[in-house]
Amino acid sequence: MHIYLAGPDVFLPDALDIGNKKTDICRRHGVTGLYPLDSAIDPATHDASLQIFKGNEAMMDAADAIIANLTPFRGPGADPGTVYELGYMAGRGKLCLAYSNEPSTYAERVPHFTKVTRTLEKRLIDSDGLTVEDFGLMDNLMMIHALDLHGSPLVMPQARPADIWHDLTAFEACVRLAARKPD
Amino acid sequence: MHIYLAGPDVFLPDALDIGNKKTDICRRHGVTGLYPLDSAIDPATHDASLQIFKGNEAMMDAADAIIANLTPFRGPGADPGTVYELGYMAGRGKLCLAYSNEPSTYAERVPHFTKVTRTLEKRLIDSDGLTVEDFGLMDNLMMIHALDLHGSPLVMPQARPADIWHDLTAFEACVRLAARKPD
Repeated sequence: MHIYLAGPDVFLPDALDIGNKKTDICRRHGVTGLYPLDSAIDPATHDASLQIFKGNEAMMDAADAIIANLTPFRGPGADPGTVYELGYMAGRGKLCLAYSNEPSTYAERVPHFTKVTRTLEKRLIDSDGLTVEDFGLMDNLMMIHALDLHGSPLVMPQARPADIWHDLTAFEACVRLAARKPD
Repeated sequence: MHIYLAGPDVFLPDALDIGNKKTDICRRHGVTGLYPLDSAIDPATHDASLQIFKGNEAMMDAADAIIANLTPFRGPGADPGTVYELGYMAGRGKLCLAYSNEPSTYAERVPHFTKVTRTLEKRLIDSDGLTVEDFGLMDNLMMIHALDLHGSPLVMPQARPADIWHDLTAFEACVRLAARKPD
């Protein structure tokens, strides 16, 4: 089984090292991890961003499954680039798995980024008046239920790990789930 | 042509009204707009979030195209729920169109949300040390190039409209593009 390893991990200073650690874990469980190219292409190259896109899309097309890192990124929700890839793989009918190293609900996190109030009709809203999804889910319902229906429910640690960007316990739990599925 | 109308519009206080306006515009251009169910299902219903997911997925499966509102939402980038849907439709091989009512680049917006610095190796990083994509694109390269290759480039206004959540000029430009494509 080939698994596309999506996540904002590609933005870490040690992006290649974490990629190697993730593919090593995959190997130990008898599956093959495919790590995106973002950090392997020189950003100064002409059309670097298009090259990265094409490389990542080809990798996703070659993969049987995705493990997406949905740890909140630069805001209350997951990294949109990663979420695009989760959607793409769901659309292609591939096995969808994901983890988040932040064990709080979306509605619990939003007040750290914007003033949240409750309307007279009990709707939770942000400072722009836009509804804050409040279903007790860890992120937007589209991602959470995509996992429920197209793979396996979001994997989370019991407690927030000391280093949310480098702890691979929840990631390894996803690899174990993938390795158990038929090819 | 049936077009799925994705966007954080479903979180607006007048979500149903904006949905009606969008489907009216579609009708005027000879196409059919399908507006997601989020705001039409009582959030107190048992399994409301799952019902919304299943309804939206069925709507996407019935659509030939998507027009996604990628206006930045609760952070520097697009709404992850909307981005999931764009990815899903790209994965299904559907026509992908999108607009944003915020005509600034991603790298220009990030400093409004986190301290951004440049490393000695010229890498732009946020306060967690994670790279800020700096390709002069309006959002993460996965969404931007998905549009370039699976539909039409992101549509944007020349200037930020007075009301970014209700101005439908860029949306109508997307509808016009979709109406011109073969069914």
